[in-house]
Amino acid sequence: MPIDQNAEIEITAFEWVPPFAQGHVRDLRPRWACEEMGLAYRERLISALERPDWYYAEQPWGQVPYVRDGDIGLFESGATLIHLAEKGGGLLPADGQGRASVLSWLLAAFNSVEPYVFELVEVEVFSRKSDWAVLRRPSLREAIGTRLDRLQDALGGDKWLAGDFSIADIAMTLILRTIPGEELLQQRPGLSAYVERATARPAFKRALDAQLAVFAAHAPTQKSSFETQGA
Amino acid sequence: MPIDQNAEIEITAFEWVPPFAQGHVRDLRPRWACEEMGLAYRERLISALERPDWYYAEQPWGQVPYVRDGDIGLFESGATLIHLAEKGGGLLPADGQGRASVLSWLLAAFNSVEPYVFELVEVEVFSRKSDWAVLRRPSLREAIGTRLDRLQDALGGDKWLAGDFSIADIAMTLILRTIPGEELLQQRPGLSAYVERATARPAFKRALDAQLAVFAAHAPTQKSSFETQGA
Repeated sequence: MPIDQNAEIEITAFEWVPPFAQGHVRDLRPRWACEEMGLAYRERLISALERPDWYYAEQPWGQVPYVRDGDIGLFESGATLIHLAEKGGGLLPADGQGRASVLSWLLAAFNSVEPYVFELVEVEVFSRKSDWAVLRRPSLREAIGTRLDRLQDALGGDKWLAGDFSIADIAMTLILRTIPGEELLQQRPGLSAYVERATARPAFKRALDAQLAVFAAHAPTQKSSFETQGA
Repeated sequence: MPIDQNAEIEITAFEWVPPFAQGHVRDLRPRWACEEMGLAYRERLISALERPDWYYAEQPWGQVPYVRDGDIGLFESGATLIHLAEKGGGLLPADGQGRASVLSWLLAAFNSVEPYVFELVEVEVFSRKSDWAVLRRPSLREAIGTRLDRLQDALGGDKWLAGDFSIADIAMTLILRTIPGEELLQQRPGLSAYVERATARPAFKRALDAQLAVFAAHAPTQKSSFETQGA
């Protein structure tokens, strides 16, 4: 377990989020990368319910994670993955087609798949009772379905997106498992098997346990309303 | 002008798109990066109206750009920017906080700003006559407004997002100038000035001219219907 309160790498995470968001907050991304590469990290916890004003100077949207590595700071989970992979090695080749493929699939996860998931979470979770969301749902599910079909075709019979397991697989897996409901993945056995394969890795399990342990330790005695930015 | 049909770098672009998309297709991103760094590139043109089947094996969504550099291939415009910057130098520091900041802002453009723009383009352009889009518009404009306020605050009085002009500024500028309508930027003078400052660069102008020259050379004699994926 690479959590070490003297570590050079510091991951900022929320101290607690409501149950539906637990296991899906984005500090899971750099946590998983650290676990894969055996990079020690410490945690810095902030409140999700009352984000501290000073935090916006580090992370312009008030979201997590923010990653500090010695005197270097990064925001955006995709940037933290690139930084950690370049530090730790093994999850992003240094050059050639290997590097090009990992970067292509990493950006695909963040710019060509996750935007659909953001919109679907808005439609099916946060705004599910709004008239517009009810009307939008069918066409959006069709659009994301087409995108997922293409993704499944591209993966084909391969184990991982870009050769060896990489930061692109960390990003894509965590994005796919946040899709609301189970049908969209269940209808695509190639993608379901991919997510299962990735989340069967011991490093994923350790990262997930670490996130959940924080929430368990900070569970409020009474449930409060919650703004879900950054979850 | 670095267009050179013998260049090692090849950018795949559409041969023609309808007027509303001209100047906004994403091959503009690697074109601009090449122009900034004086990297010669050649063009490979495909039809946007009838995307060739073979192209999906290179670019899983059938979009542009796809960038080839010798025997290395990349898709996703963000990945092409990282690759070109690492090849050409100057738009992405090799290490330290400089690199961390450019990567953070690059990913912010692709994952924290552009997803709002995707949704707004859907609501205000492609689906503008749908009931759901009419109902969704106010809350979406409010959400993107809040995000743009944060972006303007983060930029503050700085000229560029991460120190010197970088690939993060190429991405963010081209994303901001694709926001439908003019009010969202006009109401934020810091962001309007930023986009003006970036698009005043001679390299941007050359990149834009190069994209528009292709469309002019391939303009259909009669307008045809058009599917706007990838625009």
